[in-house]
Amino acid sequence: MNIERFHQQLRFIEEIDRLKLVHRQTLLMDSSRQENSAEHSWHLAMMALLLHEYADTPELDLLHVVKLVLVHDLVEIDAGDTFCYDTEANLDKATREQLAASRLFGLLPTDQAAEFRALWEEFEAQATPAARFANVLDRLQPLLHNNRTQGGTWRIHNVTRDRVVERMRPIQTGAPTLWPFVNQVLDEAVANGYLRPGP
Amino acid sequence: MNIERFHQQLRFIEEIDRLKLVHRQTLLMDSSRQENSAEHSWHLAMMALLLHEYADTPELDLLHVVKLVLVHDLVEIDAGDTFCYDTEANLDKATREQLAASRLFGLLPTDQAAEFRALWEEFEAQATPAARFANVLDRLQPLLHNNRTQGGTWRIHNVTRDRVVERMRPIQTGAPTLWPFVNQVLDEAVANGYLRPGP
Repeated sequence: MNIERFHQQLRFIEEIDRLKLVHRQTLLMDSSRQENSAEHSWHLAMMALLLHEYADTPELDLLHVVKLVLVHDLVEIDAGDTFCYDTEANLDKATREQLAASRLFGLLPTDQAAEFRALWEEFEAQATPAARFANVLDRLQPLLHNNRTQGGTWRIHNVTRDRVVERMRPIQTGAPTLWPFVNQVLDEAVANGYLRPGP
Repeated sequence: MNIERFHQQLRFIEEIDRLKLVHRQTLLMDSSRQENSAEHSWHLAMMALLLHEYADTPELDLLHVVKLVLVHDLVEIDAGDTFCYDTEANLDKATREQLAASRLFGLLPTDQAAEFRALWEEFEAQATPAARFANVLDRLQPLLHNNRTQGGTWRIHNVTRDRVVERMRPIQTGAPTLWPFVNQVLDEAVANGYLRPGP
């Protein structure tokens, strides 16, 4: 056993505990509090196991999708969660997250640092079927939460339907059979006054 | 697309959100609050990706291990988290959890209900290499938390070293190269007064 390697792995495992302290805008389904990014990542991994049959590709590597969703938010430990409808905060998001990736994955032994950084970059680049399906889940999950919490963050932040449609667009390409469901949820949210119809 | 099937899957995805509300005894590494079972499951999945090289089997199915840890605590949604050192609460734990499994997994389409129930039962039975390694992670993670929080739940509940050693025993068989580390952590915890030396 390589003790230095094991201690690097432990240091990383301890460091990523802080993802449990990063709060997202999304409310839990009982509206009791905001969700944190660690439990969000668990939820996405469960959704990957449950919904991979809807991916728009016949040969999806499920383990790879699960790895992508488990890792995709780790950089928020340093960079914080950037609310998707906050235009200004999104301007320097990429720079903040690159710095975070270098520090965090740099804690790991070289081979694992390379593997985990590559997973995060693959998710960000959205150029592979696995990354696109991981992103489908990352868009779908807050839709389900907002649907169960009277509009949730849509209502709180006065978001309009057209902006949500743009945000959900990766579902249309990555899991097209789910797109009618997305539109139905948005139509109902508008009809119920939980989502502004838009300009 | 089978709409009824999709709605069953959505119902389950919404129901398991409640795992984020189940609190464990374990403290977060910054001691700010107790951990919940959803974020705990995420942490174990990350540990599976990072530490599978220490499993006492050359042909570990990593996706299967990840599935086991993602699913292993779901029954706590109905049955609650049973503290491992609470002898009385553990007497009816199995009955409570069987009822929970029937209700929860019963929300899913038949094929997925069978798959998820089988995963949970495999973890409980501890008869496969994947289940044993998943259990290694489930024992190791709170050890790391208690090590970083001045004894954490050991100190709060006045637990003795011999009971922790028994609790950690699956690590000795499932990942024997990690056993010296476990003993070292316990020795230091006793030396620092964070763990009672025992009877």
